[in-house]
Amino acid sequence: MNAREIRLAARPHGLPGLDAFHLVETAIPDPAPGQVLIRNLYMSLDPGMLMLIGAYPDIPIPPYEVGAPLYGDAVGEVMASGEPSLKEGDVVLHRHGWREYALADAAQVRQVDPDAYPSLSTYLGFGLVAYAGLTAVAGLRPGETVFVSSAAGATGSMAGQIARLLGAGRVVGSAGTPEKVARLTGTLGFDAAFDHHDGPIADRLREAAPDGVDVYFDTVGGEQLRAAIDVMNAHGRIALCGALARQSAGGSPDAGPGDPMRLIGKRLTLRGFTMNDHLDLASEFGRRLRQWLADGSLVYEETVVDGLENAPQALLDLVRGTYTGKVVVRLTR
Amino acid sequence: MNAREIRLAARPHGLPGLDAFHLVETAIPDPAPGQVLIRNLYMSLDPGMLMLIGAYPDIPIPPYEVGAPLYGDAVGEVMASGEPSLKEGDVVLHRHGWREYALADAAQVRQVDPDAYPSLSTYLGFGLVAYAGLTAVAGLRPGETVFVSSAAGATGSMAGQIARLLGAGRVVGSAGTPEKVARLTGTLGFDAAFDHHDGPIADRLREAAPDGVDVYFDTVGGEQLRAAIDVMNAHGRIALCGALARQSAGGSPDAGPGDPMRLIGKRLTLRGFTMNDHLDLASEFGRRLRQWLADGSLVYEETVVDGLENAPQALLDLVRGTYTGKVVVRLTR
Repeated sequence: MNAREIRLAARPHGLPGLDAFHLVETAIPDPAPGQVLIRNLYMSLDPGMLMLIGAYPDIPIPPYEVGAPLYGDAVGEVMASGEPSLKEGDVVLHRHGWREYALADAAQVRQVDPDAYPSLSTYLGFGLVAYAGLTAVAGLRPGETVFVSSAAGATGSMAGQIARLLGAGRVVGSAGTPEKVARLTGTLGFDAAFDHHDGPIADRLREAAPDGVDVYFDTVGGEQLRAAIDVMNAHGRIALCGALARQSAGGSPDAGPGDPMRLIGKRLTLRGFTMNDHLDLASEFGRRLRQWLADGSLVYEETVVDGLENAPQALLDLVRGTYTGKVVVRLTR
Repeated sequence: MNAREIRLAARPHGLPGLDAFHLVETAIPDPAPGQVLIRNLYMSLDPGMLMLIGAYPDIPIPPYEVGAPLYGDAVGEVMASGEPSLKEGDVVLHRHGWREYALADAAQVRQVDPDAYPSLSTYLGFGLVAYAGLTAVAGLRPGETVFVSSAAGATGSMAGQIARLLGAGRVVGSAGTPEKVARLTGTLGFDAAFDHHDGPIADRLREAAPDGVDVYFDTVGGEQLRAAIDVMNAHGRIALCGALARQSAGGSPDAGPGDPMRLIGKRLTLRGFTMNDHLDLASEFGRRLRQWLADGSLVYEETVVDGLENAPQALLDLVRGTYTGKVVVRLTR
């Protein structure tokens, strides 16, 4: 019996095409002592994967290597274990996505409760990065106005809803199509939203946030970051979480926030962060998330793509803005 | 009897010349109830005054108005008082510099102890902005490496010395002449220093801080800010305090810190601040400063320029990098 995995065929210049990916059949290995063999059930697609494909400078984790399988968050079932603390049938979260069967060091996987959420795939769009950005990074206080860019996306839709649940006074979002904008103020409960293609972003943001912005949860950078700085109130905080503008531009460096005098004038704080710095918040957040999902106060949106062979196209579509909410790939055949 | 003041003659394009300033004789007014008349003894010169002359966008305080007197920190003696809590002879710190006699609302002046320091002018180079930037803004921890730009200047020379006194493991500075660089590692006790004209700044900084930089106290922006980001360690903090690069360029906007991905990759924090946000630290810092001055562990450098009529030229010289340490103007004739 064979498994399949996707490898990086070549390092693309600019935005990758399907020819950057190579689907390969491999043998299913046996776990050595200390290892587990995992049958992956779901894997995450994340826009940041484009940075790893393109090997952008300055990224926080190692880029994908040409000829090697890609990686990313996945949830799967232990099939065989060389480590007494994990047994066959345990469900684990780990970083060896982009393959149907993964061999992992037991120390690098985390066992999860299979019954905590309606679907195991929820572990992949868990929203810890949104929660950490709003709390530990930006220090959101009740009553403040929060702006979220790419707000119909996996992280943005969680950030906006969590901001509201944490007591934000006003939650404003941007997205790239009229349908997404409608979804923000509809299902997702944002107070106001706009399409970032509709004229000067700073003007649209000022209309949506007439009292200014206190916290900006930034997954985009670029023009939206500079517009947010225009509209920020004194002592505002910006949680820098992603670089979709750069990813959509095929990796060309982003001009960034601009003149530091603007940051001094408003006494703003910009802070780059990744989820890995805030794993200490995972259990606190997990408790709150389960409660919010149970009482219906948070809407969790997910698109499930079937089959590893469809993952490359889905990733390209994701970066192009095709989806709303979290996108996962179901790997069981 | 008449007093003199300096008004803004015209709004210059780019760097101002002497023709931007207009020395005017005025009558000495009487204080109304709630006001005090102050004879100024010393006034501060500060590179940031160029932003107020040029009315740069995004500055934290109102620009100077054409035809009106300039303003800035000054220390003086109360000559007549319309307010019972202040009496003739009291020494006060206030914001009505650039004039020999100032009329001020009593609520806007702060009485100071005339015997706390060897000279009253010390109140003008007090260093609270350096202390606040290192402690409240950047959260300096013992053993960390600190980089200070424009380190031979008024704020930079305090920031570097205070960093050492707060337990920094290594203090590195940049300056614009070999003499200033020698002064940094000599009198001022920096561990390493370099001339920012000497080739790629990031290379010089890496040599001076081989283990990377944890805290950058930035009074410059521009290329030094981007070089600092190159050399920062993960979780580094940058206290944004000034924009000398922009001031020296006659106000042209600074390109800023660049791609936000670099801030995410290293999980850096950039925070703009002004002294006014941290006045709660003034008494704590005052106690420490008097101790450091008394036991000789901190060197306070000051240049005294005589006469209000010489203040404009001295300000232009200051921005050009002529001086080390704090520059004040003695106003008594």
